[in-house]
Amino acid sequence: MDTKQVVIVGGGFAGLNVAKGLANKSGVEVTLIDRRNYHLFQPLLYQVAMASLSPAEIAQPIRGLFGGSRNIRVIQSEVTGVDQEGKKVNTDHGDYPYDYLVLACGVQHSYFGHEEWEAFAPGLKTIEQATEIRRRVLTAFEMAEKEKDRQAQKKHLTFVVVGGGPTGVELAGAIGEMSRYTLAEDFWHIDPKLARVILIEAGPRILPSFDPKLASRVARDLEGLGVQVWTSSLVTGVDVDGVDVGEERILCSTVLWGAGVQASRLNKALEVVRDPQGRIVVEPDLSLPGKTEIFVIGDQASFSHYDGKPLPGMAPVAMQEGRKTAKNILAELAGKPRQPFNYLDKGQMATIGKSRAIVEYGPIKLTGFFAWVLWLVIHIYYLLGFKNRLFVMVQWAWAYLSQARGARLIVSKEWRFYQPKPKKEEPKNL
Amino acid sequence: MDTKQVVIVGGGFAGLNVAKGLANKSGVEVTLIDRRNYHLFQPLLYQVAMASLSPAEIAQPIRGLFGGSRNIRVIQSEVTGVDQEGKKVNTDHGDYPYDYLVLACGVQHSYFGHEEWEAFAPGLKTIEQATEIRRRVLTAFEMAEKEKDRQAQKKHLTFVVVGGGPTGVELAGAIGEMSRYTLAEDFWHIDPKLARVILIEAGPRILPSFDPKLASRVARDLEGLGVQVWTSSLVTGVDVDGVDVGEERILCSTVLWGAGVQASRLNKALEVVRDPQGRIVVEPDLSLPGKTEIFVIGDQASFSHYDGKPLPGMAPVAMQEGRKTAKNILAELAGKPRQPFNYLDKGQMATIGKSRAIVEYGPIKLTGFFAWVLWLVIHIYYLLGFKNRLFVMVQWAWAYLSQARGARLIVSKEWRFYQPKPKKEEPKNL
Repeated sequence: MDTKQVVIVGGGFAGLNVAKGLANKSGVEVTLIDRRNYHLFQPLLYQVAMASLSPAEIAQPIRGLFGGSRNIRVIQSEVTGVDQEGKKVNTDHGDYPYDYLVLACGVQHSYFGHEEWEAFAPGLKTIEQATEIRRRVLTAFEMAEKEKDRQAQKKHLTFVVVGGGPTGVELAGAIGEMSRYTLAEDFWHIDPKLARVILIEAGPRILPSFDPKLASRVARDLEGLGVQVWTSSLVTGVDVDGVDVGEERILCSTVLWGAGVQASRLNKALEVVRDPQGRIVVEPDLSLPGKTEIFVIGDQASFSHYDGKPLPGMAPVAMQEGRKTAKNILAELAGKPRQPFNYLDKGQMATIGKSRAIVEYGPIKLTGFFAWVLWLVIHIYYLLGFKNRLFVMVQWAWAYLSQARGARLIVSKEWRFYQPKPKKEEPKNL
Repeated sequence: MDTKQVVIVGGGFAGLNVAKGLANKSGVEVTLIDRRNYHLFQPLLYQVAMASLSPAEIAQPIRGLFGGSRNIRVIQSEVTGVDQEGKKVNTDHGDYPYDYLVLACGVQHSYFGHEEWEAFAPGLKTIEQATEIRRRVLTAFEMAEKEKDRQAQKKHLTFVVVGGGPTGVELAGAIGEMSRYTLAEDFWHIDPKLARVILIEAGPRILPSFDPKLASRVARDLEGLGVQVWTSSLVTGVDVDGVDVGEERILCSTVLWGAGVQASRLNKALEVVRDPQGRIVVEPDLSLPGKTEIFVIGDQASFSHYDGKPLPGMAPVAMQEGRKTAKNILAELAGKPRQPFNYLDKGQMATIGKSRAIVEYGPIKLTGFFAWVLWLVIHIYYLLGFKNRLFVMVQWAWAYLSQARGARLIVSKEWRFYQPKPKKEEPKNL
């Protein structure tokens, strides 16, 4: 039997689980390409942004994960295109031929055609963005402390979070908690408790994927942390001084972006069917229609063969899709038919501040402290690598008992430098 | 001994206590003039506005209070001026000569020179205004329920309260509680819990007369009821669509005004020294400088001989000033010297929602449920008339246990009709 080349693009939950499923299997050689050298535990990224965790605690070098797997090589590289005819992945330093290609490139935040807003409203998908958000939020309090003019002070103490999904909720809740508890006694000239935290959601309610009652409970929990939730509120402008919400206007120094997703740049170049969010529509076996050797999984894929709606961009979905794809590749190599992907609903959860969460698992709906403990256990369990798990637990225990934030560090680097510069020329041969 | 004529203008806490002090004393005949026929227990007026109490439960006919006092006559009339030379009070149906004049006309809200805002932002000094506020708040929810357009709906569900004094705090807290608890389950198409309640205060914090820690606690309690507190926020415009706060803009259907006071119209015409709020500066014995036969008391007066700052416009101040004035008149008639007014600080309190309050009494500072019980006991105790006390207690017990609001009545009358129309001509002979 020939050895087949499997190229995986993206080392997130989806890509990683394909590689794991193929590790040490005979008949396949795997090339895992990521522009980063680490896997990021994205569900906890907001805790880096909020100075509760350090970046290293939620990131794990990909190379280290596959040290014992002879058939997996890890390449840190930027993919520039896919040559579907020649079956090659183009990167910034050479091409990689494939028999099977797995695209798991994820998504980025969408500014709804207003990319110029990004400079004023960083999203939360990368470590650099998380660090930048942390810098901005902590700096805002410092600026307010120095500022004598009360109007300017108020502007510094206003935090707008755009997007009422889990990311926005977790960010807003964390800023609320920070201002109401963590920093409450740390300043001389300002009362951090006077900070305005506003969570803006375009839809009629926050957390639309959750049960309305749970979402309503979250809105109340957020209010308890000083966050006001503005629903049915469409952001129409973001500039250095504040945010426009239709005809309304809020002055603020800090805007954080958790709204909308758009597919990876690669998608736009591929000749594929895309859903309204730009995600690639896939077959029941997660392959491209008419291109059975190409799989698209994770947030990048639009899989609607489960309940008619595309599956949400969540870690459990990505992990299951990755495992299924590895199985299907191995099945096909063994001469067996592929199995359609069947999503096993693991439920969903979101956390609000330091001791409240909501958990939805089929008919089971939990709130409050118990939900938070469950959230904690599950997230620590899934966090990769023993060292990290232990550190995160210690970190959290300390933070919980002391009300302090271990990583309250303002790293004053220009975050936009750290984003890979988009190539001027479009990817070729797609 | 000649019988002296004492004319009291105003049947609030101040004027009423002068009359009480002079009731059935020999040597004085008292004329109590008020444009209303009732005394209003203003500290609970916000509960009428918020549909917890009916107007009759906090109002008491003045005439009924002095039924047993032969030397007190009660006149319902509008005072148009004071003839200081001729020692006569001019009213819209005749003059009343006096030997002693006690002015206790109170204050009204100040729109800082923008009287045109009043149409969009009623204050809370009269029963009519309270009823109008109730109508507007309850109507806003009804309008939102009928409205299909989500933007218009959001506007109806936005409540802005201007002024972070006790009135503003109590109004905002009550709207928050109404939307988060009382009305929470009453609507089909809207979730009242999504209502935005914003309390706007121009100064750096709410409740400036209270201890900063207590004020901070109140801000947190308000947040728990869904109210966001905006400090250092100066309202620069109010119109039918919303509120301008400097360069910020909020769309809303309901604006309530609890900011600033200005003295009664009468003050502007009197040749007296006024403080920046327009209140009349008085001598240590509460008389006008150079006019010992005229006393000014209650909110209308600016008495700063206690701790250098003018005493706040509160019921305990007004009541003590009224009693002292009665005593001084009687002392003088008996040939004894007047005593300077010596304020006995009874502390201050404010309530937030249905079970929280703050109480400040010298070094004693109470918060939470116990403070609320104290607030309740004191307010019921001071509420005039046994019938009212009993009714209010039953009303409150019911409201507390049932989470309902007994007086959830939209009275659809044009409130501005009920305000006495200001006379075109200025008061004469002042």
